[in-house]
Amino acid sequence: MDAQGSAKGSGGRADPPPYYRVHVFCCVNERPAAHPRGCCLAKGSQDLRDYMKARAKELRLRQVRINASGCLDRCELGPTMVIYPEGVWYGYRTKEDVDEILETHVVKGGRVERLMLQPSDKGVRAK
Amino acid sequence: MDAQGSAKGSGGRADPPPYYRVHVFCCVNERPAAHPRGCCLAKGSQDLRDYMKARAKELRLRQVRINASGCLDRCELGPTMVIYPEGVWYGYRTKEDVDEILETHVVKGGRVERLMLQPSDKGVRAK
Repeated sequence: MDAQGSAKGSGGRADPPPYYRVHVFCCVNERPAAHPRGCCLAKGSQDLRDYMKARAKELRLRQVRINASGCLDRCELGPTMVIYPEGVWYGYRTKEDVDEILETHVVKGGRVERLMLQPSDKGVRAK
Repeated sequence: MDAQGSAKGSGGRADPPPYYRVHVFCCVNERPAAHPRGCCLAKGSQDLRDYMKARAKELRLRQVRINASGCLDRCELGPTMVIYPEGVWYGYRTKEDVDEILETHVVKGGRVERLMLQPSDKGVRAK
């Protein structure tokens, strides 16, 4: 990364500017009910992602995309989402969590510390 | 971004290090056959993504995730993928394209210039 946050490929040419300013991926993967890891879908991730997408549209957020994704492989911490290009992960459970992520992170560029996941987080999140 | 490529939230605290070094999202969205925008799935994206995931596993690439995603909204250019955190987009069609992206971009950190999409790209890609 250079001072402007743009990266360069092996040829030294700067990458194109970002297509989306904020690109959110919400895991909506489903596993069989008895799977020991659980899955984000069984914990309501599809409805939460649909809500987030609808709210982003209502708020007329530009250059923001709220995508569904396949398994992000942090099932025990789910529902999970990751926001790029910053690569910040959240575990979230409610529409209020989604509202806070939208307002604090997506709109204002801050962080919702209480919901952020660390790379070392492996187990079930505290309630 | 600071010189190390890490970002800070509104509280000024550095974000956690990345969970994946390379996080690929391959659009596998399906639209009805008659939809004017087309869709990545109809152009073979599911098989190509499955191939990319399998190859990444065979190559034992660490901290690399090859995810399927919902509609990335660049349907006319598809199949499309985006690679984060760098936010580089590719339009690709063949297993050979996937092999080149894996070898040149994912493994070596370079760019496959012939397949890269620019933010201004809107229409159907040249063949």
